[in-house]
Amino acid sequence: MADEIDEKLLEQVKQQGEIVRKLKAAKANNVQIAEEVTKLLELKAQLGEKNGEAPSKLLLKTPKGTRDYGPEQMALRLTVLDKIVAVFKKHGAETIDTPIFERKEVLTGKYGEDSKLIYDLKDQGGEILSLRYDLTVPFARYLAMGKISSIKRYHIAKVYRRDNPSTTRGRYREFYQCDFDIAGQYDPMIPDAECIRIISEALQSLDVGPYTIRLNHRLLLDGIFAACGVPSNKFRAVCSAIDKLDKNSWSEVKKEIIEEKGLDESSTDKIGIYVSRFGGIELISELREDSELMKYESATKGLESMELLYKYCNLLQVTDKVIFDLSLARGLDYYTGVIFEAILTGDDVGVGSVAGGGRYDNLVGMFDSKHKSIPCVGLSLGVERIFNVLETKLNKEGVKTRTTEVEVFVATAQKNLHEERMKLLSILWDAGVKAEQSYKRNVKLLAQLQYCEESGIPLVIIIGEGELARGELTLRDVMSRTEISIPRAHLIEEIRKRL
Amino acid sequence: MADEIDEKLLEQVKQQGEIVRKLKAAKANNVQIAEEVTKLLELKAQLGEKNGEAPSKLLLKTPKGTRDYGPEQMALRLTVLDKIVAVFKKHGAETIDTPIFERKEVLTGKYGEDSKLIYDLKDQGGEILSLRYDLTVPFARYLAMGKISSIKRYHIAKVYRRDNPSTTRGRYREFYQCDFDIAGQYDPMIPDAECIRIISEALQSLDVGPYTIRLNHRLLLDGIFAACGVPSNKFRAVCSAIDKLDKNSWSEVKKEIIEEKGLDESSTDKIGIYVSRFGGIELISELREDSELMKYESATKGLESMELLYKYCNLLQVTDKVIFDLSLARGLDYYTGVIFEAILTGDDVGVGSVAGGGRYDNLVGMFDSKHKSIPCVGLSLGVERIFNVLETKLNKEGVKTRTTEVEVFVATAQKNLHEERMKLLSILWDAGVKAEQSYKRNVKLLAQLQYCEESGIPLVIIIGEGELARGELTLRDVMSRTEISIPRAHLIEEIRKRL
Repeated sequence: MADEIDEKLLEQVKQQGEIVRKLKAAKANNVQIAEEVTKLLELKAQLGEKNGEAPSKLLLKTPKGTRDYGPEQMALRLTVLDKIVAVFKKHGAETIDTPIFERKEVLTGKYGEDSKLIYDLKDQGGEILSLRYDLTVPFARYLAMGKISSIKRYHIAKVYRRDNPSTTRGRYREFYQCDFDIAGQYDPMIPDAECIRIISEALQSLDVGPYTIRLNHRLLLDGIFAACGVPSNKFRAVCSAIDKLDKNSWSEVKKEIIEEKGLDESSTDKIGIYVSRFGGIELISELREDSELMKYESATKGLESMELLYKYCNLLQVTDKVIFDLSLARGLDYYTGVIFEAILTGDDVGVGSVAGGGRYDNLVGMFDSKHKSIPCVGLSLGVERIFNVLETKLNKEGVKTRTTEVEVFVATAQKNLHEERMKLLSILWDAGVKAEQSYKRNVKLLAQLQYCEESGIPLVIIIGEGELARGELTLRDVMSRTEISIPRAHLIEEIRKRL
Repeated sequence: MADEIDEKLLEQVKQQGEIVRKLKAAKANNVQIAEEVTKLLELKAQLGEKNGEAPSKLLLKTPKGTRDYGPEQMALRLTVLDKIVAVFKKHGAETIDTPIFERKEVLTGKYGEDSKLIYDLKDQGGEILSLRYDLTVPFARYLAMGKISSIKRYHIAKVYRRDNPSTTRGRYREFYQCDFDIAGQYDPMIPDAECIRIISEALQSLDVGPYTIRLNHRLLLDGIFAACGVPSNKFRAVCSAIDKLDKNSWSEVKKEIIEEKGLDESSTDKIGIYVSRFGGIELISELREDSELMKYESATKGLESMELLYKYCNLLQVTDKVIFDLSLARGLDYYTGVIFEAILTGDDVGVGSVAGGGRYDNLVGMFDSKHKSIPCVGLSLGVERIFNVLETKLNKEGVKTRTTEVEVFVATAQKNLHEERMKLLSILWDAGVKAEQSYKRNVKLLAQLQYCEESGIPLVIIIGEGELARGELTLRDVMSRTEISIPRAHLIEEIRKRL
């Protein structure tokens, strides 16, 4: 039996090795290669354990479902995050930060079925802690704890979910969330519409291609469920099944609703008809003609809200980006009003949401001893997916991202001039010029120039014995490979002219 | 007995409450208040538990030793980090990121006595993980795993230590580290000297007041220990005792060396004489006259290195910032060459290091199956202490940090004009202007203007019925309280002129 497993594992290791080799040969996306390498390492580790190998030989890998980010990946990530922060700041947001872990009881009862994915810390004496699962629950805890009644804040930080990374391609156990929320007692739909405008601005500024923002309203969904005969205690369960419609077919979702959530077939079929509907503002008047649905106050209220939202979307110039989609449900329990989700609609991109959010008016109240709540609406940009889309695009276009901002490289043409390089660097740094040298005393000029071409450094200063004697320096333009002599005294001026 | 404890606790709660009240009344530093409030909450929680209170009432607090950062604190932190990153980039650094947790075995055996402070994750099936304790060990793991033979990178991220926060004022269990390291096989002291220049540039740019960078060399220390008769297997233990000289007196350290590390008194006294010495480059020649010390190769090698370092520090213009200090030892085991530490020397600041680092040539080899190592030298800026120093300074000067970057507030002078505000905002945002409004439909003009004055927003556009009819807008300068009428068509132009 043990041998059988080993054979199977060995075969898996072989196959996985083949996958990695093929991807590397095809110069595939780095992320994809890294993912497959991780799988390979894990299989090898399993094989090692089964063979009774001592764990003395350190397995060099990052924890399952996590990865390192090298300079190229970080350069892209920081560019993306900078653009997003610029949009958030354009809308007047402040930023806050909360600890990476919370007292476990803070997270309890907030995520429904997904609570099993929370990472717990070991009990080392003291409090029982868990890693944060999202940024919204810590935000609500922050508001309640500080008795903060209004704030417009963004928060970009990592969150942790013990998802099975192998089954969900491109999803990691450690990933960035990028949230913008407006908390406070305000007039209906004014902050909500701004959130939709912000998603649109962010996606526009990131240049990820065409996109659509799907809209729906939790009250309207509740009205629909009621009209279809769903008992109210099953609303959230049915909702989380409907949420899977972006990945699964209706027949699969129907099966789940009937078999797992225990709803009868006729009610389920009625729901199926509703959630297949989508369109623009005209859908509001169409639904108003549905007298059965209009018996339910939550439905009429939901439609009223949607009408107001459409009006404001129009003022904020985003109507052409939105679609009213009754199949949008959102998985999380805590939404109470409008919900939204942005998807990319270009050719090359797989389906999947790149932003989402909605109104959650009762979450803060769960933390307040008197259940005093603060109405909130917010959005979360799916930056990991955005990084992926952009990385693939850059790879395809053969664009190389610079990983440093060095403006000037200080080179020497002969041996034993490294002290002259250091003197010059000191002057450049004092003047605020981004500059570097080789950390080797003696290095061939050609090697220094090649390094500059590869790293995209625009200028080189070359120090040679002749130049030193004349009080001059050679300034080389890396792209054009042209060189000129300049007096040392004019160094900074000449560099500034060219940057 | 139980009653006795309760009485004691009750008294502690009372006293702690008094401390908090006094600090608040005295408008003390926010950080200090937050710390004392945390202590109060913890005492209250203990009291609750002892009284057998059900944990049903959620205790609203962040985990022990951690805190939230509000908008003011974050604004200051981001300004500080931006300045530091600018210095790192000036020296051509790339950046990388690694997961917040590592496989526990990666951290094992790297931190000596401090390993007990590592946070472990709960075993939820799968790998055994720990939160990172610093950024250096994950960096070494990253180099070994990726077989990276040279890199110059910075990494700014949070690390975790289960220290006792109450005993070490201002130290938290979650805090930022801010590291810059140069890995690669290079010529002696060239990267090392640049690290010292970087510390100097960073502290200069942060405007934290006067500072000194203490220098020493692990080889020289080894030579001294050998000359004093310390057996080589006790070098690191004695070293970590010496490291406490910045907080403890020599007599305390002496006691630790004799009683805990088991060294005899005469050897210890000899060490005491050496580590009391400090000065400039002249200390090198003075030590060279010590024929007993010069018998040891590590001492002569250490002095040679220090001589070269001084030469390079001179070329990089930092000699006036450094001091050669034989009492500098650094706690961590992994240093192998030059070590350094920066301290603030101004009047108002408590003693304590704000930067530190050194050479660690063997750490990467600990991760390589063939023990192939990559020489490294690096520095870590103590940003938490720097934040603290700057926060205190700003508080004292009464400087208020802006927490948003809003340039224009869109206000209305009469009721029911909120849709006009939204139209205008859409135009401003399209033009890239940072702008916001009240999320209430109707709000008094005075309240809107007051908000702008409080938040430091420079410009207000006021929409009134009269202006609308004339196709005009009122543009108000918040500081001077002057207003002018402008045609709607010139809006963006007029705003740009004033920003």
